[in-house]
Amino acid sequence: MQATPPSATASLPRRVVVREMGLRDGLQSVATIVPTAAKIEWIRDAYAAGEREIEVGSFVPPRLLPQLADTAEVLAFAQTLPGLRATVLVPNLKGAQRALEARAEMMLVPLSASHAHSLANLRKTPDQVLAEIARMRAERDASGARTQIEVGLSTAFGCTIQGAVDPAEVVRLVQAVLDIGVDAVSLADTVGYADPAMVSRLFEQVLKVAGERLVAAHFHDTRGLGLANVYAALQLGIARFDACSAGIGGCPHAPGASGNVATEDLVYMLHSMGIATGLDFDRLLALRAKIVHWLAGEPTHGTIWKAGLPRTMKAMEAAHA
Amino acid sequence: MQATPPSATASLPRRVVVREMGLRDGLQSVATIVPTAAKIEWIRDAYAAGEREIEVGSFVPPRLLPQLADTAEVLAFAQTLPGLRATVLVPNLKGAQRALEARAEMMLVPLSASHAHSLANLRKTPDQVLAEIARMRAERDASGARTQIEVGLSTAFGCTIQGAVDPAEVVRLVQAVLDIGVDAVSLADTVGYADPAMVSRLFEQVLKVAGERLVAAHFHDTRGLGLANVYAALQLGIARFDACSAGIGGCPHAPGASGNVATEDLVYMLHSMGIATGLDFDRLLALRAKIVHWLAGEPTHGTIWKAGLPRTMKAMEAAHA
Repeated sequence: MQATPPSATASLPRRVVVREMGLRDGLQSVATIVPTAAKIEWIRDAYAAGEREIEVGSFVPPRLLPQLADTAEVLAFAQTLPGLRATVLVPNLKGAQRALEARAEMMLVPLSASHAHSLANLRKTPDQVLAEIARMRAERDASGARTQIEVGLSTAFGCTIQGAVDPAEVVRLVQAVLDIGVDAVSLADTVGYADPAMVSRLFEQVLKVAGERLVAAHFHDTRGLGLANVYAALQLGIARFDACSAGIGGCPHAPGASGNVATEDLVYMLHSMGIATGLDFDRLLALRAKIVHWLAGEPTHGTIWKAGLPRTMKAMEAAHA
Repeated sequence: MQATPPSATASLPRRVVVREMGLRDGLQSVATIVPTAAKIEWIRDAYAAGEREIEVGSFVPPRLLPQLADTAEVLAFAQTLPGLRATVLVPNLKGAQRALEARAEMMLVPLSASHAHSLANLRKTPDQVLAEIARMRAERDASGARTQIEVGLSTAFGCTIQGAVDPAEVVRLVQAVLDIGVDAVSLADTVGYADPAMVSRLFEQVLKVAGERLVAAHFHDTRGLGLANVYAALQLGIARFDACSAGIGGCPHAPGASGNVATEDLVYMLHSMGIATGLDFDRLLALRAKIVHWLAGEPTHGTIWKAGLPRTMKAMEAAHA
């Protein structure tokens, strides 16, 4: 046993934003095509549960991801809800142009830290993607749209194709996108390779170059470490986490494994720790049940829905209501 | 974003002991009676995988836990394996007498921090259990046996019957058993109520009174926070964790929920973080498959067996071999 580190919980944020990724990262990984009406019901229910940041889809060619072909329509609905920050993923300049036309509030651009993943996913090297991000920024500025650009560093903790990813390469790419002038960056463990020690080390390094422009963490629970990784990032003051209702999404290379960190599980952990999210847990569980119904036959995940809240927490939640 | 706490990973132990609880905490929670021959095969395989601390059963009346009726026989086998520390759970003085007769190397005595759980589980108040622990210690000293006594503070983070458990009561009970002169104490989240912030706070408080006599943490994964809680305890230098192969065990009040932290998942996290366990991951997975077979129809849990190790880790493990 060693002396107690005084800062284990000292830097924990008091409030965290949970960014729902189910409609994009979740649905892009399943075969089922969820009807637009159900997506709109999903967003309405998530909004009623208190969610204020939702990634509603991707501007990619419909032939590649027919599940997300209705992204423009879904985004248009989301934009009618006051105070909802609806984001879209854009993989290239063409997608960015569509996001700008739609006046999306934020577009998320994936940039693989793994050279091999970048080639497999976008048929471009990371440096070619950087060049495209620079063009996106120029178009954004020229368009007069107020769309923010966040670059998500995917495969930041390793890659199923390439294997290890050098943290120095992650830092280099973060510096490069900041130099381009994007508004924000986030780090993603796209394939579930991160552990809490890796999270501590990499976020610490990236915070040094990005500071407050490092706005979010995106963890998959593929190997069961999703929430442990969230805790490690919380300790560094990270206060925005991506998650998917019912833990959908994930990696085609790990069939049967868990997908993204489940929204309900993340919210349970945060509330238990006394960290506010503004979210209504019971409504999140009810939405989860609907999503499981819409995705009948697809794998869903998560833990807290099975066991239920602790008695102690029900009392705590009631006291807050 | 705040300044980086410098100690997030500074206090992590370099080596951790994983104490296998499947034969006791796991099997006591399932209806299946695993034959003695299978238990012996289990122990032999666990030993071959590198396990050196195994809780082999409980000295309780067979009518209460027929699954563990063969504990004396299983213990006798375990004692033939050089360097294996075989432990038994004893709920009362009679059980302790059997452990002393069997010359068990260590007996684990549960002491509920929850008054209500103590009454429901042992029909004694915590203070009545304290008095019995004092008698156990006296008998142990008089017997000349070298059996060590570890007291496991159960329901240390809350209780399904009572609800909240006051950390001050946990500290009081720890101090009382240390005053009695037991060799070691451990803290258990018996029903899966702990979160990483609670773990940090309670372990910090108990370390102040117990120091190096706080030897282990026992987490259940009932609500998905098991490994996050392990990480929080690791940061305080805790270097022994209880776990069950296949994540068996758990709480009868949460049917379908996960049980104890799964041995394989825990070992994966530790190895990924560069913390040595002395365990062979592939052998643990093979043993897990046997256990799932022996418990056909019973719920089993765990994550890493589905997804497999990261490519990066396979290389790392190979480099260590």
